[in-house]
Amino acid sequence: MKDVAARAGVGLKTVSRVVNGEPGVTQDTERRVQEAITALGFRRNDSARVLRKGRTSSVGLVLEDLADPFYAPLNRAVEEVARAHGALLINGSSAEDPERERELALAFCARRVDGLIVIPAGHDHRYLEPEIAAGVATVFVDRPAGGIAADAVLSDSHGGARAGVAHLIAHGHRRIGFIGDRPRIHTAGERLRGYRTAMADAGLPVPDGWVSLGPTTPERVRAEAERMLSGEHPVTAFFTGNNRVTVTILRVIAQLPHPVALVGFDDLELADLLSPGVTVVAQDAARLGRTAAELLFHRLDGAEEAPRRVELPTRLIVRGSGELPPGES
Amino acid sequence: MKDVAARAGVGLKTVSRVVNGEPGVTQDTERRVQEAITALGFRRNDSARVLRKGRTSSVGLVLEDLADPFYAPLNRAVEEVARAHGALLINGSSAEDPERERELALAFCARRVDGLIVIPAGHDHRYLEPEIAAGVATVFVDRPAGGIAADAVLSDSHGGARAGVAHLIAHGHRRIGFIGDRPRIHTAGERLRGYRTAMADAGLPVPDGWVSLGPTTPERVRAEAERMLSGEHPVTAFFTGNNRVTVTILRVIAQLPHPVALVGFDDLELADLLSPGVTVVAQDAARLGRTAAELLFHRLDGAEEAPRRVELPTRLIVRGSGELPPGES
Repeated sequence: MKDVAARAGVGLKTVSRVVNGEPGVTQDTERRVQEAITALGFRRNDSARVLRKGRTSSVGLVLEDLADPFYAPLNRAVEEVARAHGALLINGSSAEDPERERELALAFCARRVDGLIVIPAGHDHRYLEPEIAAGVATVFVDRPAGGIAADAVLSDSHGGARAGVAHLIAHGHRRIGFIGDRPRIHTAGERLRGYRTAMADAGLPVPDGWVSLGPTTPERVRAEAERMLSGEHPVTAFFTGNNRVTVTILRVIAQLPHPVALVGFDDLELADLLSPGVTVVAQDAARLGRTAAELLFHRLDGAEEAPRRVELPTRLIVRGSGELPPGES
Repeated sequence: MKDVAARAGVGLKTVSRVVNGEPGVTQDTERRVQEAITALGFRRNDSARVLRKGRTSSVGLVLEDLADPFYAPLNRAVEEVARAHGALLINGSSAEDPERERELALAFCARRVDGLIVIPAGHDHRYLEPEIAAGVATVFVDRPAGGIAADAVLSDSHGGARAGVAHLIAHGHRRIGFIGDRPRIHTAGERLRGYRTAMADAGLPVPDGWVSLGPTTPERVRAEAERMLSGEHPVTAFFTGNNRVTVTILRVIAQLPHPVALVGFDDLELADLLSPGVTVVAQDAARLGRTAAELLFHRLDGAEEAPRRVELPTRLIVRGSGELPPGES
């Protein structure tokens, strides 16, 4: 800063005024200081600034899995809203590890973000209580918080899964397998509940062998699907709990000699181009992100109502795979 | 901090020692201070810490488009390497806007990241010179820097496109259309150059009407494809410059009465399940990210060699769409 002052031929106080956007500096002086700053590569130091002002105009987003295409439009929507509010978005992913979620969220808080949007991996968010008490606005998205009262923006997983399974039943299926994500994931449980509701609505029994929750690795999903397709009462249709499962089931089905029906939770980019097209229960990921981010900035603007839970509808998109009749097996 | 000291029954200096991990504090005292911190929700203040220490153990990643699935594995690979080095990854996207790229990169620097990985949207990176001079390690990935000497990790776009187009020529095609991204994007230009090299290698002329660079919106790509498919000398095959273009061309081709061959740059998640499967020139996006991140930490470890340019090979994956013979048209 001394070098900048010397080069611009002004005092330290003047440099400080220019850097902090304070009044009392002529245009000509400001220009000279700016040129000196550019010439010397003076690094604007936000760390010092944060200590003085409080607000950092940044928000943190804790994602689940950066490689899951479902989260890409959500991420982008949050970034667009943050940008429209003049805030920088900082993000990172938990890779579905509760400890890593905690680390990331606290690292963002330590960097003094104004607000946090969290796709939770864990079920206990009491670790955020001191941060929230200290004024960090926090909104959960895709899955609710655990152990604390907090804003949450979710898709209607139960209703969506129920409608998707009812669609298969309406097309004549009675033996429908459900393969979903790990049981500790809120949405996996809700979608399984939707499946059970639809089966119960139709008076259909659900043997244990037709339901499988666990990691969405291709190996596990393939083995479970092959198990459900064999034996005395093979399933004639699948309802899949998310897009990672759907992709593997599509590969399993493609190799079978007889058609098997499928409705998947989450849309896929090329779902309309497969033969048959893939019938899905689509979430609006961009709307989830946008709604969560808008709620966050609403809180940052000082809104002090009780925590809200927003549930967005899903949409059944009929393309062919969910309308196949039960085959001979 | 005074409250913590009072609650723990110690002096301010002791609290400071515990918070900063300095020696000279008994285990019992440390425990009491930690308990007081937890009870009071004392916010660890990294902003103050940064001012004292210099290194922040964080790196910034400037992405291009958060909603393009190509970047998801790259992003994840960078995050994994950063995590293995104990560093926090902060990222954001430029949405292909050079001004926004600059804003983001400088915002990360202002937050004092140790290093930057940039997928550049612009061509002039001299704005980073003061930051680099101040010690911010910087690696460019997917596209090279402009106006400065800097590390870059790229795919062999020219060689990959050349091999993809040669593959179509080997299957009998003479009239091949090229549709790619905007001409100011380095990879778009390189892939067009690869197309021209392959056509020249085979002694084939390239009328202007067979080449189109521009935004990858479905509307533009569809209009250009339909133009190339009509007229006196319609193309019998397409080479597409990236996955955004390929997705639209697949939809155009699916509606045609006669088969049209296609080789696309970039792989797609369901490419193997379409009929025919989509032949692609695949980049290894995860390896791009991993290589760039490892190079960044190599620099952060003090490596001072001249800037490096690493070029990763692409891989032709044959699945059916690129092996269709020229149809009657």
